[in-house]
Amino acid sequence: MRTVKIYDTTLRDGSQGEGIAYSVQDKIRICQKLADFGIPYIEGGWPSNPKDAQFFAKMARARLKNSVLVAFGSTRRAGTAAAKDRNLQELLSSRAKTVTIFGKTSLLHVKEVLKTTPQENLKMIEDSVRFLARNEVEVFYDAEHFFDGYSLDPAYALRTLQAAEQAGARYIILCDTNGGALPADVSRVIKTIRARFKAPVGIHCHNDSGLGIANSLAAVEAGASMVQGTINGYGERCGNADLIPIIANLKIKMNVDCISDEALARLTEVSYFVSEISNMRHMPNQPYTGDSAFAHKGGVHINAVMKTTRSYEHIDPELVGNKRRILVSELGGKSGIMTMAKSMDLDLSKNDPKTQKAHELLQKMEARGYHFEAAEASFELVLKKALSSVSEYFKLDSFRVVVNKDGNKKVSTEAIIKIRIKNQLEHTAADGDGPVNALDSALRKALSHYYPQLNEMQLSDFKVRVLDEKAGTAARVRVLIQSQDDRDTWSTMGVSENIIEASWQALIDSFEYKLMKDRIR
Amino acid sequence: MRTVKIYDTTLRDGSQGEGIAYSVQDKIRICQKLADFGIPYIEGGWPSNPKDAQFFAKMARARLKNSVLVAFGSTRRAGTAAAKDRNLQELLSSRAKTVTIFGKTSLLHVKEVLKTTPQENLKMIEDSVRFLARNEVEVFYDAEHFFDGYSLDPAYALRTLQAAEQAGARYIILCDTNGGALPADVSRVIKTIRARFKAPVGIHCHNDSGLGIANSLAAVEAGASMVQGTINGYGERCGNADLIPIIANLKIKMNVDCISDEALARLTEVSYFVSEISNMRHMPNQPYTGDSAFAHKGGVHINAVMKTTRSYEHIDPELVGNKRRILVSELGGKSGIMTMAKSMDLDLSKNDPKTQKAHELLQKMEARGYHFEAAEASFELVLKKALSSVSEYFKLDSFRVVVNKDGNKKVSTEAIIKIRIKNQLEHTAADGDGPVNALDSALRKALSHYYPQLNEMQLSDFKVRVLDEKAGTAARVRVLIQSQDDRDTWSTMGVSENIIEASWQALIDSFEYKLMKDRIR
Repeated sequence: MRTVKIYDTTLRDGSQGEGIAYSVQDKIRICQKLADFGIPYIEGGWPSNPKDAQFFAKMARARLKNSVLVAFGSTRRAGTAAAKDRNLQELLSSRAKTVTIFGKTSLLHVKEVLKTTPQENLKMIEDSVRFLARNEVEVFYDAEHFFDGYSLDPAYALRTLQAAEQAGARYIILCDTNGGALPADVSRVIKTIRARFKAPVGIHCHNDSGLGIANSLAAVEAGASMVQGTINGYGERCGNADLIPIIANLKIKMNVDCISDEALARLTEVSYFVSEISNMRHMPNQPYTGDSAFAHKGGVHINAVMKTTRSYEHIDPELVGNKRRILVSELGGKSGIMTMAKSMDLDLSKNDPKTQKAHELLQKMEARGYHFEAAEASFELVLKKALSSVSEYFKLDSFRVVVNKDGNKKVSTEAIIKIRIKNQLEHTAADGDGPVNALDSALRKALSHYYPQLNEMQLSDFKVRVLDEKAGTAARVRVLIQSQDDRDTWSTMGVSENIIEASWQALIDSFEYKLMKDRIR
Repeated sequence: MRTVKIYDTTLRDGSQGEGIAYSVQDKIRICQKLADFGIPYIEGGWPSNPKDAQFFAKMARARLKNSVLVAFGSTRRAGTAAAKDRNLQELLSSRAKTVTIFGKTSLLHVKEVLKTTPQENLKMIEDSVRFLARNEVEVFYDAEHFFDGYSLDPAYALRTLQAAEQAGARYIILCDTNGGALPADVSRVIKTIRARFKAPVGIHCHNDSGLGIANSLAAVEAGASMVQGTINGYGERCGNADLIPIIANLKIKMNVDCISDEALARLTEVSYFVSEISNMRHMPNQPYTGDSAFAHKGGVHINAVMKTTRSYEHIDPELVGNKRRILVSELGGKSGIMTMAKSMDLDLSKNDPKTQKAHELLQKMEARGYHFEAAEASFELVLKKALSSVSEYFKLDSFRVVVNKDGNKKVSTEAIIKIRIKNQLEHTAADGDGPVNALDSALRKALSHYYPQLNEMQLSDFKVRVLDEKAGTAARVRVLIQSQDDRDTWSTMGVSENIIEASWQALIDSFEYKLMKDRIR
């Protein structure tokens, strides 16, 4: 079985993604996760950047299981001796055992960006690689803009690679820096370079044509033995090649070894972890690891999937640690409700008038902006209430939220609630960091005496989505709350033109769901 | 120049995407947009679905410029005569002149999903195509699961296509329904089919391996002359093949004609339009048309792009109606600030202590959760305030927001504000649909007497993003408000643990920006 080395650059190229800004602590956590996962090369950043230098200093003592931490930098400046070049010095002081430096392939860049001569550029590459190699560092050479440079002037592009190889580069990585290459070009060029050079060849792609994954796989088919990319494809513009589907495709579909089977089953976990630390929404349609990747919505598909899972799934979701989901929606129709009812142990036949009633209620709520796909706990409550099998644990009399801002003082928030529990009226109030937090606190205060199990639960996630955003501040909002106790995680939803009311609905559902599920157990 | 026909299925397969639910009116708007854009085939849906039937009824009288509206359905049921099959009847009553029907290729599906014989399945295909063709409809045949079926039993897969062709299908479309194929497989299979059949061949891909675009292009290279897909790649699971980059790649990079040059320059507009009607966030990293597709963040890249745009851009963004953006961020450093200051006509040198001061302030705010990339008006205000060149138009004394919910009555919201304007104290109050709407109304009430130009502006978009979502209801939130008058659109931002305060900050910035820009003009 062929082997390909995965080289992760989430911490360097990924951090250039719009909306991403890693702290040193974030970088350490991602690095350790990737090392545990088994990525052989993890690029940590530019030691010439103070934040990254701090990261390398902290990592110098860390032991990474099966992984090499790589420092990144450029070739020396034009007209400077390598030994006196600050960037190269900083690469050495990072104490990374492997260093990747990038140099220019393209005469366009040599002339118009570096503003130097083609000859000096070759010397810059050669000097820099040799200087690092003589300082006992393993050097990888990233040939920036290789595909563009090669089509502009193939002879010169080859000379830049010769300069790097002769000076001791252990890997030559061809970069499609602008992300504009097509798979056929990548394949042809990789084959040419493989035939002319002894050093192994790697690939580094961007996604500007939507082909970052395809170009990386085409390179492997043509003989590349290293793939550079980022987790979830984070990166500048349209992102880097996404290592998540690349790893899965290599391993499952191309019979190329790049990671263990056990690691493969953690692919979804790693993909989610990195999105959380990056504070990026995990894309539901992310190939292999997305929340929708094995979700079935259409009626025809659901019927078929119930019969045989292979019929609408390209792989078994468990291979990559993901799972199948059956979505409830107007399109799924009653068969979706039946499936859900079954999973809740509700005895319901398709022609039962109750099924019809639940179906109508569901459709009405969806028309108002509910999306039960993401809030299965709220859906379960609606369904059970439609079948009148839920006790009423408490009942709202009224609530009031007051937010006060006085000059430059810190804003203050107070929630006052009046609810009936087991025929007792509880009238209480609480402060909070914001209106939802204050309501949450007041509700716990009122209820925990009667239902002490509520102390076991906490709200673990809170999302707000504005519906019909074009309506400006009068738009309806959908609030999604995720809650958990030591056994379960559940999601609830509220929809209203008033964000406080929407949050209140989602909160109430979350509390009710907790009480209901504990009673059933 | 070769020509490829684009076949859009956003209204059918795209509507299966998680979170998408089109009304009839939505479908009409998207259909008309795609027709104006120049998509030759627009698949409208299943006439067997009542909502879609209504859509076809309304479109029967519409004239679509250069486009054919296509109805979609399945082959007849097993054991039914085609003429008596309800689905086929409904296809005819849709009055669509072109109809696409799908049939089974794979013996797995024939046996386990249809539960019929291989022979009956061939008859189902043949009868259905012939019945429609004899009723003067142009028939396209979608061979579902073709690639999986072909690898399972090539001889049988070919017989299904023969059945369709002999019965009069005008196009044979090979579908990678599970989205698991690789480009090399697609290419090989398309070549085989092209060599054996007279009917032209189309391709229909899904994106489960992250290769929907690449597989579609590989099919075109191998001889396919129709590409089916959806705008922005909407669709079940990981989506369908994304027509946006497919069109751009065919036209710009592969020299294949599929749309006019004028239409190409509207690609970004169409991509945004469909995302709005679909109520889906337009993905910033969307190839070609995303807001980040030509955005430059890293310091090295910004310097190079300022020197020569080709250096980090694979195409000229204007070709597809998109534009270049220079991002302001800690990574962009001072060169980003300088560029922005220049575009604001601010005279600032890099070593000016004011630049340093602005830079520090900016970094501090970014650390608190601001992202000026999306809120250039707030950034401009911060920068101008740092250089003390902004007048104070008004000053907050205090605000209070009260949200009241009484039993099952409608929730009520009131905002009370006290502000100083030109040394006058204004103390007023207003109701609203929600807290932000109430604050907006109260603020207008207090200010419009002094600044009547505020009546020209309105809030056109409102977004809420929860930062550190894991903090539950105590999380910080970032509010983004977009405003517009008859000349401009601007975006402002607020960040706080209290959603009301964050909204207030964004509101205030929006009002101030309007007053400032009008004074400058």
